[in-house]
Amino acid sequence: MMIIPTVDYRRGAIEIIDQTLLPREETIVRIADVREAAEAIRALRVRGAPAIGLAAAYGMLLALERYLHEKVKPAPEYFFDRCEEARPFDAGSLDAAAMVGELESARNLLAATRPTAVNLFHTLGRMRGAYLGVNGIDPAELSARVARTAFAIHAEELEVELAIGKNGAPFIADGMNILTHCNAGGLATAGYGTALGVLYAAWEEGRRFHVYADETRPLLQGARLTAWELGKHGIPHTILCEGAAASLFAAGMVDAAIVGADRIAANGDTANKVGTLGLAILCEKFRKPFYVAAPLSTFDLSVLSGADIPIEARAEEEVTCFHGASAAPRGSRAYNPAFDVTPAGMIAAIITERGVIERPDREKVRRGHDAR
Amino acid sequence: MMIIPTVDYRRGAIEIIDQTLLPREETIVRIADVREAAEAIRALRVRGAPAIGLAAAYGMLLALERYLHEKVKPAPEYFFDRCEEARPFDAGSLDAAAMVGELESARNLLAATRPTAVNLFHTLGRMRGAYLGVNGIDPAELSARVARTAFAIHAEELEVELAIGKNGAPFIADGMNILTHCNAGGLATAGYGTALGVLYAAWEEGRRFHVYADETRPLLQGARLTAWELGKHGIPHTILCEGAAASLFAAGMVDAAIVGADRIAANGDTANKVGTLGLAILCEKFRKPFYVAAPLSTFDLSVLSGADIPIEARAEEEVTCFHGASAAPRGSRAYNPAFDVTPAGMIAAIITERGVIERPDREKVRRGHDAR
Repeated sequence: MMIIPTVDYRRGAIEIIDQTLLPREETIVRIADVREAAEAIRALRVRGAPAIGLAAAYGMLLALERYLHEKVKPAPEYFFDRCEEARPFDAGSLDAAAMVGELESARNLLAATRPTAVNLFHTLGRMRGAYLGVNGIDPAELSARVARTAFAIHAEELEVELAIGKNGAPFIADGMNILTHCNAGGLATAGYGTALGVLYAAWEEGRRFHVYADETRPLLQGARLTAWELGKHGIPHTILCEGAAASLFAAGMVDAAIVGADRIAANGDTANKVGTLGLAILCEKFRKPFYVAAPLSTFDLSVLSGADIPIEARAEEEVTCFHGASAAPRGSRAYNPAFDVTPAGMIAAIITERGVIERPDREKVRRGHDAR
Repeated sequence: MMIIPTVDYRRGAIEIIDQTLLPREETIVRIADVREAAEAIRALRVRGAPAIGLAAAYGMLLALERYLHEKVKPAPEYFFDRCEEARPFDAGSLDAAAMVGELESARNLLAATRPTAVNLFHTLGRMRGAYLGVNGIDPAELSARVARTAFAIHAEELEVELAIGKNGAPFIADGMNILTHCNAGGLATAGYGTALGVLYAAWEEGRRFHVYADETRPLLQGARLTAWELGKHGIPHTILCEGAAASLFAAGMVDAAIVGADRIAANGDTANKVGTLGLAILCEKFRKPFYVAAPLSTFDLSVLSGADIPIEARAEEEVTCFHGASAAPRGSRAYNPAFDVTPAGMIAAIITERGVIERPDREKVRRGHDAR
């Protein structure tokens, strides 16, 4: 089983694979400042709903790290590392209220990075639970709670992905051709994947199949990231432009589609990378199952339907420029939503860590979600 | 009315706007060799079914020009120019059979450039009619016939486009949002356009609307060429990635789609740039009319249905590389058909120079075609 070190927290800093450089360069970048962490999320150096959530949790831990580094004298080289016990330190000079203030401003900064993926708000809320409403606690214990929460989010996220893989693998049969959109693999998560995790699990169980990867304009996460991951796993795959997908379906060359999700509403409507709705419509037209694989943390029951999911509009230059070169006439306008919403009625099943919600609707989503 | 000098024949050479350089450079390239002309078609320096047909006709004229240049002594600076009378020359040393041999090998070279657009074969056949089966004719008269035929193809093509525009304009109403795919404008034709010609005609009649242009991966004809043309015509427009089209439809922001065609089968099935089928499926799903605008020369009644239209497979690097940079991991495979086929049943109307074939089927296509 391959776990990609997409986001980690080592020796006092966040480490990420800079995904904007893939597949040309596999570079681990150390981020030691929370503003840099926010910028890395905004610039898609780290992307994918679960990975964004994890990076944000670690962004808060980083804010704490920096605060401690400034206040604790003498300061150790670093305070936190995912693989080490927290270091004891003299918390005598620390003020819990000031520490919470630092964490809150980090939270606000991180919450403003990207609006659609609910995992971000989910993990930020969970991190907050580690320090809000625990009055009278001493600063050392407070900081230990924050660190434990971040590392727990990481560990649980990975377990969740493995469970999604196991639950989804039965849908993938020998000889299938499966189409996926964007990247919902290890690079989008804590390292294994959601939609691609299902494929990896099926592959590890010995089934053999072929994957079509939508290149996924404008930022080519399919061509750059999904192809890179599938190559690492040794799974045969072919890249295509989104526009070529209909002809693949028409030729009977696609048996199923599987994607991840950025936010799932209470009725099962699913926001995911722009282009997903078009793929779901192709599945409907050609009567092929369309699967969503996502952790329960991607559900947002406070949002009644997809119409209420906020959709991030990204820079027009993502469409009109490419590798720094202008592809369109100067001054051209572009429509560039980052996500679209697929109605629940088009989804054959949502695969979660707790089981499979077939033909999702409000009632089934409630039951599937409460099961956790 | 704006006519783009997409393909012309001036002073003994083909002149084309090199479309691979647009929109950054508007460069007219002179092509003085038939192999170069074939290469320009293959490399999409000139593209679009009617423009390919015209370039091929001129490619044959160029072969004749080169033959005359070699054989006639003294040779004038050039023999043919679209805007001038053919120059008298001493044809005493010429051999009609050798001339026909040259024309035939040019024809074979040009016919092998691209397999899908039937206009290519149509104009090559028409050029052939100028010299085959006319035994005993003298070489000077033979060459005059060839030149007249090429220039007539050009003039008629432009008339046909204007008639298509006029016939299609009534479908475009004030305030509409119209989505188009690839480029079926002046750059794809003799200079006015088919699908875009319909929009230009409606605009010239005073109606005001907005156009969405699919960027059209992999070669971005929409972002590069359609946006450039629409800008020249002053028509407001917005570029989008194909993957974003479904969300536009879902938001009620598209009223109709219009595209060109590369080959239309006897039953109305239409081959056009890959991605067209997906767009037609969106129109069907969201109940918006999907129009095809094409000259009658795009019909191929010898092909019973879309299943029999040959679809060009282009280089995988068109998908995996961009501006010379690799976007995908080294060695990645890609699926890159240049065209797809939209079933006649999804087409609201095919707009031709002789009228409109609504809800096309075999019988209506036959009647619409015979009307010419």
